[in-house]
Amino acid sequence: MEPERPLDALNQARGKRVIVELKNQKQLIGTLKAFDIHINTVLDDAEEHENGQLKRKLGTTFIRGDTIVLISQAS
Amino acid sequence: MEPERPLDALNQARGKRVIVELKNQKQLIGTLKAFDIHINTVLDDAEEHENGQLKRKLGTTFIRGDTIVLISQAS
Amino acid sequence: MEPERPLDALNQARGKRVIVELKNQKQLIGTLKAFDIHINTVLDDAEEHENGQLKRKLGTTFIRGDTIVLISQAS
Amino acid sequence: MEPERPLDALNQARGKRVIVELKNQKQLIGTLKAFDIHINTVLDDAEEHENGQLKRKLGTTFIRGDTIVLISQAS
Amino acid sequence: MEPERPLDALNQARGKRVIVELKNQKQLIGTLKAFDIHINTVLDDAEEHENGQLKRKLGTTFIRGDTIVLISQAS
Amino acid sequence: MEPERPLDALNQARGKRVIVELKNQKQLIGTLKAFDIHINTVLDDAEEHENGQLKRKLGTTFIRGDTIVLISQAS
Amino acid sequence: MEPERPLDALNQARGKRVIVELKNQKQLIGTLKAFDIHINTVLDDAEEHENGQLKRKLGTTFIRGDTIVLISQAS
Repeated sequence: MEPERPLDALNQARGKRVIVELKNQKQLIGTLKAFDIHINTVLDDAEEHENGQLKRKLGTTFIRGDTIVLISQAS
Repeated sequence: MEPERPLDALNQARGKRVIVELKNQKQLIGTLKAFDIHINTVLDDAEEHENGQLKRKLGTTFIRGDTIVLISQAS
Repeated sequence: MEPERPLDALNQARGKRVIVELKNQKQLIGTLKAFDIHINTVLDDAEEHENGQLKRKLGTTFIRGDTIVLISQAS
Repeated sequence: MEPERPLDALNQARGKRVIVELKNQKQLIGTLKAFDIHINTVLDDAEEHENGQLKRKLGTTFIRGDTIVLISQAS
Repeated sequence: MEPERPLDALNQARGKRVIVELKNQKQLIGTLKAFDIHINTVLDDAEEHENGQLKRKLGTTFIRGDTIVLISQAS
Repeated sequence: MEPERPLDALNQARGKRVIVELKNQKQLIGTLKAFDIHINTVLDDAEEHENGQLKRKLGTTFIRGDTIVLISQAS
Repeated sequence: MEPERPLDALNQARGKRVIVELKNQKQLIGTLKAFDIHINTVLDDAEEHENGQLKRKLGTTFIRGDTIVLISQAS
């Protein structure tokens, strides 16, 4: 059995609500629609949060991969 | 059916009004005219906003991809 | 005998509890599930620690490799 | 019809007066003479501006692409 | 005779005690077990030092190459 | 006629006195001896200037390209 | 006659005493033993200097290329 690869794990989060943490300290929460090998990522219904507070609703949002620290599932 | 890729989502925003957030905290709002795989992006009728305020009208503007944090549709 | 390569060492930590230190000073502690040549890494049951204190439980978490300083085994 | 690419837009600015904004906050204003895929750029009759003020005349100037935020036409 | 290459010199330090200085000002001291062309490096029995003081014992540690400033032999 | 490329312009400055501005705010002034596609650059008779003042004479100096902001001719 | 390339100039400094300036403001002075296309560099008998003062003797030292600003000959 092949060891799992990181993008496989990300693939399992497609269509689910995820938290994307950015290098500029902001969090985007949205539905994971697409990503590529650079981790360029598209969220649907994205919201920007800062210090746990909703700041803005962004709708469908393209995030450049190199600004991302981590992606986890929203609880 | 192929899973959607991030640049497909960006492609659907061509010709529409978008917000481009930069690593230097500025926002550019303009009509998405062109982009490439590095996310180098061209906006028509671009305006620079800072803290929600219009600072400058820039006209057609080329943005180097590595300075971009995210691109979302202007509401 | 081939000299060992860094990713071999990382491979031996698969399924074990590891500490991932990030460039933004945070630590993630979790079970090493997957990694690739960019050191993009997936942890299961990840917890975010800061200054030795548990801040948040994150569950399965994808970490972009270029934000990682080091990975060691949790004691 | 092929969608336009970002470098096409830049190409249309050749020979015209442009504003180049740098990551170090400075602006260079000059006549766009040449650029390449890295956005390495050459301006003729370049002037350095800071906070809207002319600081220095630089003449023909080579700018390393990775220091550039955006390029727009000078009005 | 071929001029020596930097990785040859690093190779001669395999199995020896080395100091790895990181961009975040920390020092890791450990036994050099493995490295690759990106300078991703594995130390055995690694210790983290800061300002000349032992802060933590880390055991076997994977260090992402792009966080490394220099590697020298521990005296 | 081929449009001129940025390295052509740099090539015309070979053997001439140039100002090299670095990301760390320093200026090096010297005779442009060599450069490559990464903009790694060698100056002969280089002098380091800071805030318009001569700080040090460096002689022949190799500059790593990714530290360079711009290169213009010294007047 | 081929124009000289930057690494040729560096090659002429092999075996000589050089100053290596790092992005973290430190200077390493040592005998240039080896370098590669990334400017990964090995110095023999390296000394770390800061503000013109000897801080530490490091012996043979591997320096990751991307931390280097410039290399000049020690006078």
